[in-house]
Amino acid sequence: MTGRVLVTGAGGFIGRWSVRPLLERGFEVHAVLRPGSVAPVEVQGAHLLHADLLEPSTAASLVAAVRPSHWLHFAWIATPGIYWHSPDNARWLEASLRLLDAFRAAGGRRVVMSGSCAEYDWSRVGECDERTSPLADPGRAPPYVSGKLALQRALAEAGERHGLSTAWGRIFFQYGPFEPPERLVASVIRRLLAGEDAPVTHGTQVRSFLHVADVGDAFAALLGSQLEGPVNVGSAERTTLAALLRQIETRIGGPGRLRLGAREAPPGEPTLLVPLTRRLDEELGWRPRYTLATGLAQTIEWWREATAVAGQGRLT
Amino acid sequence: MTGRVLVTGAGGFIGRWSVRPLLERGFEVHAVLRPGSVAPVEVQGAHLLHADLLEPSTAASLVAAVRPSHWLHFAWIATPGIYWHSPDNARWLEASLRLLDAFRAAGGRRVVMSGSCAEYDWSRVGECDERTSPLADPGRAPPYVSGKLALQRALAEAGERHGLSTAWGRIFFQYGPFEPPERLVASVIRRLLAGEDAPVTHGTQVRSFLHVADVGDAFAALLGSQLEGPVNVGSAERTTLAALLRQIETRIGGPGRLRLGAREAPPGEPTLLVPLTRRLDEELGWRPRYTLATGLAQTIEWWREATAVAGQGRLT
Repeated sequence: MTGRVLVTGAGGFIGRWSVRPLLERGFEVHAVLRPGSVAPVEVQGAHLLHADLLEPSTAASLVAAVRPSHWLHFAWIATPGIYWHSPDNARWLEASLRLLDAFRAAGGRRVVMSGSCAEYDWSRVGECDERTSPLADPGRAPPYVSGKLALQRALAEAGERHGLSTAWGRIFFQYGPFEPPERLVASVIRRLLAGEDAPVTHGTQVRSFLHVADVGDAFAALLGSQLEGPVNVGSAERTTLAALLRQIETRIGGPGRLRLGAREAPPGEPTLLVPLTRRLDEELGWRPRYTLATGLAQTIEWWREATAVAGQGRLT
Repeated sequence: MTGRVLVTGAGGFIGRWSVRPLLERGFEVHAVLRPGSVAPVEVQGAHLLHADLLEPSTAASLVAAVRPSHWLHFAWIATPGIYWHSPDNARWLEASLRLLDAFRAAGGRRVVMSGSCAEYDWSRVGECDERTSPLADPGRAPPYVSGKLALQRALAEAGERHGLSTAWGRIFFQYGPFEPPERLVASVIRRLLAGEDAPVTHGTQVRSFLHVADVGDAFAALLGSQLEGPVNVGSAERTTLAALLRQIETRIGGPGRLRLGAREAPPGEPTLLVPLTRRLDEELGWRPRYTLATGLAQTIEWWREATAVAGQGRLT
């Protein structure tokens, strides 16, 4: 056994995909889910705990119950359209710091937390390097970004002060099964499958998309390693949004439904926003299972099966 | 390594759930998918092969390529509303027999195939026992049933004549993620989630439902065992359809949408049709992960996430 890992946010879009890769690497996995929530099938094989991480007493009791040697932290507000400016970001920062204290005090050794490409200063950087690229100004950034920046700093400090091994995965763009349906890839797939129009922006933005099962796998690999500090979790494969969306259109059919340029791009959206992946590729030696082509094919098929029209309720 | 297993029908509703349990038991898994089909995420970790099993030359080339010691056979026509009377049943019987010959000739040792509770004579048996309950008359049964009966006989004979170790899993009722949306549980969940009426029959039929991930796990356990002959793959937990459907209604809410008695039950549908599970429980020592309550909760959540309304395509 490699260790006993606490996974917080294990029921979420990304967190659930870390469980199987952790099990495959020999970890004993303790998955924390929101109270009253149902365990997704992807967390099978983990020990399940339901806990409200925003409740101050939870950190101590959780750590006392599990005695984790490792901790993988995904839990944070992630509601599409809400999370960016929500005051809950401050509450998640507090909860994360409480957990970090409790984990360290109970003898935890290795932590990996999930950050975001939004930590980089998009007005000054296109190809993001973990060590040299400028970060956003916490005083001007939206609460989501300033919260993540503060947590990353606190994590690095706790590492230095207490000899904790820590890493911070900066997630770029991802897609895959269970993606919140408001988000770009899920929304376009769903609309095209339903025979509806999919109005999108001009699509010249250059991005890097990683299948969410690969995001989960990369975090499991990172936790199992000795790598320290921020690590971009993204694909080395770059694409314009237009090229990505046209791949979807070609696979689904229904030409003309994808309407590039029909929507305004949000102000301040960068033209180029991609990770340099040298840390992930070379220092960690990690490889994704999916290319963009195979990952999109799998994801389209998933949505196709999941959203086929309900029928007449035959038993046989 | 326990062995090298060929899984035919690995992309299907049931087959895909056998891959992970096989990997967990130490098998090297070679998953056969339909030509041009996309591998579902559940078969990650398996070697993938695309092959048309109905093509006569496939059997020999597949077995030559994989040299399997074990074989788990799910592939068969399963299109809801079609499969029962389709002439394709005869083609799948032939394809299965060709594969059986090729597997045995190449030194394969252990085979488990998937059968159905429909093999029992529903007019004469309610609690189905593998050894004593009467089977349907192949001369009067629909092509699906007579095809499965013929394959089971051929498998048993091949076992006796050639010293092959064989078992035959008779699947009762199942439900779970990716269930074809025309079928009962998927259809009622989907309709209630959409706020639509779900007209069903009287619901006094007594059945046994197993979560499809447990069906896959049971087959993996069976393949890894020495058990021979027919084995019921079903839950010891019995329920009326009404009680099962009311559990769904209670979890989803929207009272009054589930309309018991609004549809006629098909002629000849038995009142009681459940497996005796002594072979699975005691001889194999297998236990399901899900109860009906936890399995339905998980399945409802899966459909809820998968079928939420698509939104506006935000990138962040």
